[in-house]
Amino acid sequence: MRKLKMGMIGGGKNAFIGAVHRIAANIDGLIELHCGAFSSNPELSIESGQALFLPKNKCYGSYEEMITAEAQLPPNERMDFVSIVTPNHAHFAPAMMALDYGFHVVLDKPMTLTLEEAKQLAQKVKETGLQLCLTHTYSGYPMVKQAKSMIADNQLGAIRKIMVEYPQGWLSTSFEKEGNKQAAWRTDPSKSGISGCMGDIGTHAAHLAEYISGLKITQLCADINTVVANRRLDDDGNVLLKFDNGANGILVASQIAAGEENSLKIKVYGEKGGLEWHQMAPNTLIVKWLDAPAQIYRTGNGYVSSIAAFNSRIPSGHPEGYLEAFANLYKNFALTLQAQLEGKEPTAEMLDFPTVSDGVRGMAFIENVIASGRSTQKWTEFKI
Amino acid sequence: MRKLKMGMIGGGKNAFIGAVHRIAANIDGLIELHCGAFSSNPELSIESGQALFLPKNKCYGSYEEMITAEAQLPPNERMDFVSIVTPNHAHFAPAMMALDYGFHVVLDKPMTLTLEEAKQLAQKVKETGLQLCLTHTYSGYPMVKQAKSMIADNQLGAIRKIMVEYPQGWLSTSFEKEGNKQAAWRTDPSKSGISGCMGDIGTHAAHLAEYISGLKITQLCADINTVVANRRLDDDGNVLLKFDNGANGILVASQIAAGEENSLKIKVYGEKGGLEWHQMAPNTLIVKWLDAPAQIYRTGNGYVSSIAAFNSRIPSGHPEGYLEAFANLYKNFALTLQAQLEGKEPTAEMLDFPTVSDGVRGMAFIENVIASGRSTQKWTEFKI
Amino acid sequence: MRKLKMGMIGGGKNAFIGAVHRIAANIDGLIELHCGAFSSNPELSIESGQALFLPKNKCYGSYEEMITAEAQLPPNERMDFVSIVTPNHAHFAPAMMALDYGFHVVLDKPMTLTLEEAKQLAQKVKETGLQLCLTHTYSGYPMVKQAKSMIADNQLGAIRKIMVEYPQGWLSTSFEKEGNKQAAWRTDPSKSGISGCMGDIGTHAAHLAEYISGLKITQLCADINTVVANRRLDDDGNVLLKFDNGANGILVASQIAAGEENSLKIKVYGEKGGLEWHQMAPNTLIVKWLDAPAQIYRTGNGYVSSIAAFNSRIPSGHPEGYLEAFANLYKNFALTLQAQLEGKEPTAEMLDFPTVSDGVRGMAFIENVIASGRSTQKWTEFKI
Amino acid sequence: MRKLKMGMIGGGKNAFIGAVHRIAANIDGLIELHCGAFSSNPELSIESGQALFLPKNKCYGSYEEMITAEAQLPPNERMDFVSIVTPNHAHFAPAMMALDYGFHVVLDKPMTLTLEEAKQLAQKVKETGLQLCLTHTYSGYPMVKQAKSMIADNQLGAIRKIMVEYPQGWLSTSFEKEGNKQAAWRTDPSKSGISGCMGDIGTHAAHLAEYISGLKITQLCADINTVVANRRLDDDGNVLLKFDNGANGILVASQIAAGEENSLKIKVYGEKGGLEWHQMAPNTLIVKWLDAPAQIYRTGNGYVSSIAAFNSRIPSGHPEGYLEAFANLYKNFALTLQAQLEGKEPTAEMLDFPTVSDGVRGMAFIENVIASGRSTQKWTEFKI
Repeated sequence: MRKLKMGMIGGGKNAFIGAVHRIAANIDGLIELHCGAFSSNPELSIESGQALFLPKNKCYGSYEEMITAEAQLPPNERMDFVSIVTPNHAHFAPAMMALDYGFHVVLDKPMTLTLEEAKQLAQKVKETGLQLCLTHTYSGYPMVKQAKSMIADNQLGAIRKIMVEYPQGWLSTSFEKEGNKQAAWRTDPSKSGISGCMGDIGTHAAHLAEYISGLKITQLCADINTVVANRRLDDDGNVLLKFDNGANGILVASQIAAGEENSLKIKVYGEKGGLEWHQMAPNTLIVKWLDAPAQIYRTGNGYVSSIAAFNSRIPSGHPEGYLEAFANLYKNFALTLQAQLEGKEPTAEMLDFPTVSDGVRGMAFIENVIASGRSTQKWTEFKI
Repeated sequence: MRKLKMGMIGGGKNAFIGAVHRIAANIDGLIELHCGAFSSNPELSIESGQALFLPKNKCYGSYEEMITAEAQLPPNERMDFVSIVTPNHAHFAPAMMALDYGFHVVLDKPMTLTLEEAKQLAQKVKETGLQLCLTHTYSGYPMVKQAKSMIADNQLGAIRKIMVEYPQGWLSTSFEKEGNKQAAWRTDPSKSGISGCMGDIGTHAAHLAEYISGLKITQLCADINTVVANRRLDDDGNVLLKFDNGANGILVASQIAAGEENSLKIKVYGEKGGLEWHQMAPNTLIVKWLDAPAQIYRTGNGYVSSIAAFNSRIPSGHPEGYLEAFANLYKNFALTLQAQLEGKEPTAEMLDFPTVSDGVRGMAFIENVIASGRSTQKWTEFKI
Repeated sequence: MRKLKMGMIGGGKNAFIGAVHRIAANIDGLIELHCGAFSSNPELSIESGQALFLPKNKCYGSYEEMITAEAQLPPNERMDFVSIVTPNHAHFAPAMMALDYGFHVVLDKPMTLTLEEAKQLAQKVKETGLQLCLTHTYSGYPMVKQAKSMIADNQLGAIRKIMVEYPQGWLSTSFEKEGNKQAAWRTDPSKSGISGCMGDIGTHAAHLAEYISGLKITQLCADINTVVANRRLDDDGNVLLKFDNGANGILVASQIAAGEENSLKIKVYGEKGGLEWHQMAPNTLIVKWLDAPAQIYRTGNGYVSSIAAFNSRIPSGHPEGYLEAFANLYKNFALTLQAQLEGKEPTAEMLDFPTVSDGVRGMAFIENVIASGRSTQKWTEFKI
Repeated sequence: MRKLKMGMIGGGKNAFIGAVHRIAANIDGLIELHCGAFSSNPELSIESGQALFLPKNKCYGSYEEMITAEAQLPPNERMDFVSIVTPNHAHFAPAMMALDYGFHVVLDKPMTLTLEEAKQLAQKVKETGLQLCLTHTYSGYPMVKQAKSMIADNQLGAIRKIMVEYPQGWLSTSFEKEGNKQAAWRTDPSKSGISGCMGDIGTHAAHLAEYISGLKITQLCADINTVVANRRLDDDGNVLLKFDNGANGILVASQIAAGEENSLKIKVYGEKGGLEWHQMAPNTLIVKWLDAPAQIYRTGNGYVSSIAAFNSRIPSGHPEGYLEAFANLYKNFALTLQAQLEGKEPTAEMLDFPTVSDGVRGMAFIENVIASGRSTQKWTEFKI
């Protein structure tokens, strides 16, 4: 085998999430940065790429140029996949083009600007048979996978209730007017889509709830708020949920929860017990029982499920974090591609990364939750 | 001065909350158990009272008998107040009678069986000028009072969001059919009223949110659930809230959150910061700031507010708990009565206990939240 | 039965620990304050007693007067026991006199000013057959008892290592020179004895280690420090320990650990697992296993040991604290006296309170640890 | 600039720490794996290197071969530094040879087998002017650096007391006899040196205490234990410490603390406050004050010190872990080398990694602590 070659779209100097993607791709030594269209400004793209030690000819001035140029190279010399780390409005076109030219895709969430785009992308993935990995990072944590496997094994009994909350405080002020790029595009409908907070972090929360529980949201009732004056998109919301097995739930996402960092938490309750996971203490999973002491499951121990073990690198007590969770998505994606390159069937463990269908559900979540927020009816069906 | 004389209604052998009330009344040495109608069964009442070292003639066979007999004694020999610790359906009649006979009242929550009863009781309290203390225990914790005073001082800025959750797991099974008395009456509409979970613990959560924030709920949207098969009342619910200053909120109460003990938590966010309090770690209040490290406020330190200090007995690091919080209600109530007996005006600190008007709001919460649960409209006005 | 009558020695207005003893005695309704010699100043004693609603004739001017006067009353009218809550130097004489006159004794720790006094007191207790309860409060916590019972049941295997630490910060400055009474006597050799920190809190830590583990300290190696300039007694120390089964340990006690409240923690490790308890979160006991998830034992649950359950009053999730732990000592002492009054044998659960022999060991700990601190030899035998 | 080329010594298939070094070197994209002598078995070395996507000619059969071969390549084609990840007994020879041939060195701790070797290595580093980075990982955490900078800024006042503990449980049984390679060499004096536990983890604890406080250990009094029967080296120890400013301290290291993972914790107390850091929750630093609420410092916030910010990659609330701390050592080492390659002076931030002098102190710690363990004298001078 060989390292896989990554071509990055976006992620130039000063961009945040591009650097995270590169670290995540670096960690396991399965992927090398091969080329990039780091900016729509060709000079900035070259400058960015060279700072990453790329030769100048691998720093393209646009993603179109990169995709067409790379596609003309022999298979072992061209990039294997693109990683798209641009704002939401610039996901769809490069992803479609990459797939059209035969490149696999890693894509940041939410997947597209609209549900309609998401469906087209799903159709394209289906037609091409290529892989698309959507970076719902939080599903990459080992203890999230432990939770998922315990529920799948029916250890908690039928699931009855899910509480997921994702409070952040960084948009408590009009940060977007103070020159913060991250805040600016996230609060701009032309770049972010119809939702701010729900699109940015509500989708993570919804994905996490469905991923861990194995259930699907069927109805929702949303209170969607724009708390900071003159902001153009929602920065806060509370949502009642119903799941396909009859369980109820609640989802809170907020970017005006002053003083909160990135405090994603989930609690799931079944007939026999419950579990609790906090993103900011990610190597611990508390499992609670009706008639016995609660248990503290911890990453890296011999007793964790095989899927949790597969997504952990170091012994117990050596904390793994967000970058390792992110790296698990890249690692599983890379192992899948390598297996396919070798003509093998990827294992279930390799295929454990969010795909285009998660992206479609995420876009549907956004559209449904915003529609519900505008409705005077209590319940809105979750439509795709 | 002298100790105040308490007459207890309910709380016989094997009852739970009666014993808690007695401990709470004992702690500060301001109150003595003077008499009781501990059971509607006269023999059991006597047996219960004697186990509490009461003379036989102070163990009455009914509350009617107790109130009439005590009222005929000279002022310094009769009870000063009644403490009513019966199930909900047996709150109204003894409370009304006690007030009619000139006795102050301590009453467990929810205050009555219906909002209509609550209003009548409020009217009676107003007419008689007597004191009624409603035992919303959680508002008795020092760090809850610290939170309240910091918000009242505008340290967090205008409040934007309140998240309160109260998960318990003890009704995850059909416990009421296994001979558990506590479960039995709480799930019986004739004794509990129109709500189970929302009445029993949802009211605590709603009171806590309003007490800490100083805000009032104006609208709610409820998903009310009966999760355990064949149960006659709700055992779970999720509620979207709007407050009178425009803040939004969420309230979760559940008795089927398997593995949870009594995990009441509240988070309040303002423009400048947020705060977080957990009932199971009650001596800690986390205060979070936009641009500075979060702070850990702790009971018993010199820096806490005067009202927090007033409701704490021991130095920092010596944990106070639920019984001390409960005792704070009794202590403040007793200090109020003693001040009045001495012809003095009770101070604001003495008067800091929940009253009949909190009880009216609590009953209104129950009626509104159940009505919302049945409605297909999203928002229900909070009507009294 | 009847309530037991307590005569208090010390604990006048503004005293700290006297008020704690009274609350602890009040909580369970088994004990009533009957009389007191609250101060060596007769006027202050009367003033203090009347503020506690005692009649004037029950407020004695000295403990000698109280003991002789009460001893002349008929059995059912006189006090049953004395509670001595004075500084260390004023423990021995009233305790000896009370025993001589046939009164049981509750005594604050450390038991006496010297080991020699402690031995005399032990001899007196033996001769009189009376009960002496030494208030090592921390052994009264339910989860401490849970820990003790799990180790006694060999659930952890043979104990190998004990780590106990008790950092406080309140003496970080020359607090004793700023008019603080608590600090003043604790740093005064004539009132406190040969040790400050080790006597005040080191004894608690040593008792806790022995109580939980069932082991005895056999050797120690101490680094005893006076950190604050011009202080006359130690305010800090670190001690290496050996136990009678060969286990090793470490004990840290400090009153200059700036910013610490009352952070007593213990960890005990055996062949098969370990456990950890923190006084400031006292209702939780973490039990750790070699090959399985750690468990969170919590007060008030059905799975706790009978001795833990016996020392808890309220359901799980309703925190009990320091005052309840203290009350457990009084409750068990009172149940023992009541059983004896009724001519019954007290049960093992009733007899579970620290006694004069714990007091002798405590005083020996102080003398040995101070001797070790002065020695250039590594190990000092634990001599009594 | 260009990526730096790393040649690895040790770290073949199934080795643990080699993989960790590679991830740490990968994370920031500043270093590429260039070659390796992964095993003393040439076939295994090739197999290991090819699994890492190295060409066969870069997989050497021995470190001697690698160093001599690479030294003959032109500067831009040869490795820039070696990373030595073998057991302790195989540190000294390759490190000396690499330095002799002009290669910088990354070396796992403890630095050598003996203090004498350590001194020779220090002399060699001094003579060659090359860089040696010793991987005391825990000093790479951002909040450890925050603690160091706050103490250096005198925010806590003069330091009075340091408590550091490092309990692990993985050697609670005779694991080394069950085929575990990690356990086997660590308990073998010929590979590990004169100490097991103190060398493996005690050195980390000692380094952390000195790094954070800026103080040096001057005296120690050790209780060194071999708890598991027939083990050849210590697996547990407790040490009293004195520091060069007169502060006292305590250090506990144990590998038989059953149920503990990797629970390194440190508490440092000064005149004005204290701080506490736990490796298993590494992004939090608790800072405690005499008269104000404790503060929760968190990685990634705007208020952290510049050195803490320099060693963090992602926004607050996105946990960084052990691998990122490890990567900080590699990153700072790499930035130092790159600066020197460009003829620039490395900044203080770049030079913030443990060096050969830390390694000498670490070896001195081992020799002194073991000598103290054997002594009947209380205090042993810390000699180098």
